[in-house]
Amino acid sequence: MTQTSMTATGFGGEDIIRDYIAKYSNWGRWGEDDELGALNHVGPEQITAAAGLVRQGKVISMTLPYDLFGPQVGAFRANPLNMMTATGTDYLNGCQDPLPADWGPAYTFGFADDVIVMPNQSGTQWDGLCHIFFEGKMFNGFDAGLVSSKGAAKCGIEKFRQKMVMRGVLLDVARYKGVDALEPGYAVTAADLDATAAAEGVEVRTGDCVVVRTGLLGQRRAKWGDYCGGPAPGMSLHTAPWLAEHEVAAIATDTWGVEVRPNEIELFQPLHIVALVHMGLPFGEIWDLEPIGADCAEDGVYEFLLSAATLPITGAAGSPLNALAIK
Amino acid sequence: MTQTSMTATGFGGEDIIRDYIAKYSNWGRWGEDDELGALNHVGPEQITAAAGLVRQGKVISMTLPYDLFGPQVGAFRANPLNMMTATGTDYLNGCQDPLPADWGPAYTFGFADDVIVMPNQSGTQWDGLCHIFFEGKMFNGFDAGLVSSKGAAKCGIEKFRQKMVMRGVLLDVARYKGVDALEPGYAVTAADLDATAAAEGVEVRTGDCVVVRTGLLGQRRAKWGDYCGGPAPGMSLHTAPWLAEHEVAAIATDTWGVEVRPNEIELFQPLHIVALVHMGLPFGEIWDLEPIGADCAEDGVYEFLLSAATLPITGAAGSPLNALAIK
Amino acid sequence: MTQTSMTATGFGGEDIIRDYIAKYSNWGRWGEDDELGALNHVGPEQITAAAGLVRQGKVISMTLPYDLFGPQVGAFRANPLNMMTATGTDYLNGCQDPLPADWGPAYTFGFADDVIVMPNQSGTQWDGLCHIFFEGKMFNGFDAGLVSSKGAAKCGIEKFRQKMVMRGVLLDVARYKGVDALEPGYAVTAADLDATAAAEGVEVRTGDCVVVRTGLLGQRRAKWGDYCGGPAPGMSLHTAPWLAEHEVAAIATDTWGVEVRPNEIELFQPLHIVALVHMGLPFGEIWDLEPIGADCAEDGVYEFLLSAATLPITGAAGSPLNALAIK
Amino acid sequence: MTQTSMTATGFGGEDIIRDYIAKYSNWGRWGEDDELGALNHVGPEQITAAAGLVRQGKVISMTLPYDLFGPQVGAFRANPLNMMTATGTDYLNGCQDPLPADWGPAYTFGFADDVIVMPNQSGTQWDGLCHIFFEGKMFNGFDAGLVSSKGAAKCGIEKFRQKMVMRGVLLDVARYKGVDALEPGYAVTAADLDATAAAEGVEVRTGDCVVVRTGLLGQRRAKWGDYCGGPAPGMSLHTAPWLAEHEVAAIATDTWGVEVRPNEIELFQPLHIVALVHMGLPFGEIWDLEPIGADCAEDGVYEFLLSAATLPITGAAGSPLNALAIK
Repeated sequence: MTQTSMTATGFGGEDIIRDYIAKYSNWGRWGEDDELGALNHVGPEQITAAAGLVRQGKVISMTLPYDLFGPQVGAFRANPLNMMTATGTDYLNGCQDPLPADWGPAYTFGFADDVIVMPNQSGTQWDGLCHIFFEGKMFNGFDAGLVSSKGAAKCGIEKFRQKMVMRGVLLDVARYKGVDALEPGYAVTAADLDATAAAEGVEVRTGDCVVVRTGLLGQRRAKWGDYCGGPAPGMSLHTAPWLAEHEVAAIATDTWGVEVRPNEIELFQPLHIVALVHMGLPFGEIWDLEPIGADCAEDGVYEFLLSAATLPITGAAGSPLNALAIK
Repeated sequence: MTQTSMTATGFGGEDIIRDYIAKYSNWGRWGEDDELGALNHVGPEQITAAAGLVRQGKVISMTLPYDLFGPQVGAFRANPLNMMTATGTDYLNGCQDPLPADWGPAYTFGFADDVIVMPNQSGTQWDGLCHIFFEGKMFNGFDAGLVSSKGAAKCGIEKFRQKMVMRGVLLDVARYKGVDALEPGYAVTAADLDATAAAEGVEVRTGDCVVVRTGLLGQRRAKWGDYCGGPAPGMSLHTAPWLAEHEVAAIATDTWGVEVRPNEIELFQPLHIVALVHMGLPFGEIWDLEPIGADCAEDGVYEFLLSAATLPITGAAGSPLNALAIK
Repeated sequence: MTQTSMTATGFGGEDIIRDYIAKYSNWGRWGEDDELGALNHVGPEQITAAAGLVRQGKVISMTLPYDLFGPQVGAFRANPLNMMTATGTDYLNGCQDPLPADWGPAYTFGFADDVIVMPNQSGTQWDGLCHIFFEGKMFNGFDAGLVSSKGAAKCGIEKFRQKMVMRGVLLDVARYKGVDALEPGYAVTAADLDATAAAEGVEVRTGDCVVVRTGLLGQRRAKWGDYCGGPAPGMSLHTAPWLAEHEVAAIATDTWGVEVRPNEIELFQPLHIVALVHMGLPFGEIWDLEPIGADCAEDGVYEFLLSAATLPITGAAGSPLNALAIK
Repeated sequence: MTQTSMTATGFGGEDIIRDYIAKYSNWGRWGEDDELGALNHVGPEQITAAAGLVRQGKVISMTLPYDLFGPQVGAFRANPLNMMTATGTDYLNGCQDPLPADWGPAYTFGFADDVIVMPNQSGTQWDGLCHIFFEGKMFNGFDAGLVSSKGAAKCGIEKFRQKMVMRGVLLDVARYKGVDALEPGYAVTAADLDATAAAEGVEVRTGDCVVVRTGLLGQRRAKWGDYCGGPAPGMSLHTAPWLAEHEVAAIATDTWGVEVRPNEIELFQPLHIVALVHMGLPFGEIWDLEPIGADCAEDGVYEFLLSAATLPITGAAGSPLNALAIK
């Protein structure tokens, strides 16, 4: 059996990666069995405080519709396909009378039913902590081999089922910079985040989900091109210290992969390595931040109760979700 | 073309159905274009008040895991099947180096990915207002023919994307009655609901989601038998007036189909006809109410902020969800 | 309920369509219950004679691989997606020991398993006789309403399960014309077919499958562009009389839709209307005719035993297949 | 990384397994790159001779319909699910006018389309040579790690695309023994095979597919019970020498797994290990042999041209097929 060496060496930027890992890794911080990672920063106090942000009774979704018009181009991942297994047209044509099973005559009762086929990471999503590996391991040092065709025995997305309620803070970097969208290749820096927060009059606290708007999704909607995997603005690798110091619980953006593309060093998606694999930070990707961006600009309130529950799909590497900002 | 007559006649119980529809239908109440139905009862005031119920910072999921161990037996609907398209075992074996696309050498970067195939109504779910038809129509009089193989042009589940945040009230009828689970065939009455609420010290208000625990799911877990579609305790058809008078926004239970089975009259699922089709009440089914039941019994608090977002699957008849009770 | 009028009028070319239907329709020809259509031209005599063409013991597949590199671009139809539910990498990593179910210790026994998700018409395919409707009917006058979400109650592809063995004749029109591929928009005429057959020294007989090579698939392989649904060479509508007079049992080409695109009259895919719907001729589409074209050119033998079995998918509108030319 | 030791020891029957492998393995026999295994026994001479068996012009399918009424019970594998993405009922209701894409007005043109989701091994199937592993290897010594989530890089089912045409011989052991079906646990011996062949007046030759009828499928149809994986009659492990000596190219039965269950030694499916993994013999499973059994009994002809093409699903471990006996 041929096996890749599971020590990563010889790539440009190796020093900085090792330095960040050494300084900011959360492996073992919450126990050797921990599968929640940075979500441990969210405790009862944070949840209660976040609920206190609900003052207007307004709910804004940050999720793109799940359908064939999504950003995927096939091959690596396809768009969601929802198929009807019972329809109103069947019903009108008499195809549902009598009812299935032993349910008897219909007396005009009818129904619609459907089946969805979708890559969990095809649209608005949470990456689970089993989604990315480095040097043979996922978060907290769990062996990558625990993720087999039968799913993830550790760090599956279902572990987050009661955790995705917290304070959300929108850092609308694009709006702060006065552009519709940051340019592909633009690396959002810690200074950008601080300046945006300052301009918005909001501060980032322990247990927050930081939601960063680059404007890319709005610009590419319905003409996606290379939105998935191509050049994109996004978080700089060098925001890792900022994310750690602010004890952020999660991060989400309106891009395919949270971090800037092309990557800043030779390693693919290096912020995933530092922040997701070592800090245990869930990444929210392909969030539609246009409505929340407009809303926050209008009322000047950039913080909200974030309810962004994962579906508890046993052993999954990620999950679709309906991310709600409740103000 | 043969077509079923779309006038329902000649079934036992026709009079009562027509009476309830005449008295409680919400067709046109919120405009002829309305696709939200009883969710219109939830306004900013209700949402803000519901958020005020978060006092302990506790999150409890009412969703069953989505996997092959769910209650479905195939044929009509199957259990969710999550398939891995990239695994840690592949990665450890060197199969992900180099990376796909033009992403270059892996330097031990690896990933897991997956695709889910699931009937939207196979596990914990919301029924959308296009899920059920009667006399050729769905809620608000929309023609059933608007639900074709391409999905629902009206009343698709995506219309609820910003609506499923409200006050939740658990009415633990099984616990109130002192049983593990109500018997199959037991019809929960309005009197049962009132007595349970009184015993719990909670009142049902405009815009609430009433969550009714029968105990059946807990009893059948992992040995489902005929849980799907077979005899079950559940809401009596005659709770329709109670639901209307309390201006309930939604209802959810721990059974396959909310209402008692066998049905009380000759029409299949008659409460669906009155409450879902005519009142526009979303039905939550196969909710796992064991944890919330235990928690409420312990702290004596039967009300909570319910965050139960649907996935915005365009044109879908229903949706999986992670229903969160936040206290 | 809004319903399309099921009488087709007012389109350019209506006269010719009605004329061809009047002259060549096979509705009722083989009984009012017939679901086999032109395949009735294949009897024991034809099968035995076709088997007599096997002289070299050579088998050539005319099927494109089923995988993500196929011609589809998503939305209308996607390419086949095969997902592994058990892998060798899992096995090597110890994930299959002990075996599933109660099959005990593995003693190094291991296995691979997979699930395919594919539109039946996404690659090399047979169209069934329920695939196309005109004026509310499919072949033999069966009502289109017999094809519901539960599949086709009449003319489903499973009806062909014992029929797709016959004589195949390759008419390599592209090679006859001395081009790599006929131009998009080029309508293959009856004269082209006759001239090609004459040049090849082959004659078309009752019960044959006529296999027409345009060269388009070979030209577009791996750079498909608008291969699916875009301009293409193909059979002229005016080959309908030729197909009828030769008592052809089936037709197949190396294009998306058999007939020339853009269509020659205002009706979409008019040869489908005449030949598939009214003559009951199964259409083979997206066949890879490059290997058989080269082989026939080399040995000068353009006839073969065609074994092109449909999968008996109950109620399906079409089927993938491995079309074998046996010489 | 924990890894299973890939040396099999300590199980009852180890000696006989090692003996059979030593004597009958075909690893290297047709070159170190060979992925066809025993199908190499089928050459032009065998194909031509097999075609010569077609004397009556009769085609008999040995494939079970692919639908929800198949033998699977879910979890390990589900039955095929075919979903309609366009229907006649939609069409009649006017939902297909205008046509999709830029195809214009329908003028009553309509269509049906569908998508199948099925485990490749859920119904009548061929097992590919990558389906089973032993001591870390598949046929011809290829490393099991070549079968990843991306499919089989070696011995995928698509390698058989031009090979599944050969002489088929039905050995109707159940009929020979005078029973409807052999008993679960009954191990068909080499003597049984010889006696059956003698009674039928047929001999097994190099390059044949031996088709063994136990009667189990006929007995269990529509009331499958534990047909999949439970006790079953089937080939004895000790037929391995017989299969090797007769230079059989493939074997198929009307049971879930070809060989007798419970297995005769402590190793799971030991004939798979000897015959599929080491001899390179494709296994055909869940074949419906009732019609061919009746036909052969009637005409006394137990040999035929077998056309049993695999779908060329790239990298798949197995394939559905329509197995045709042509007489």
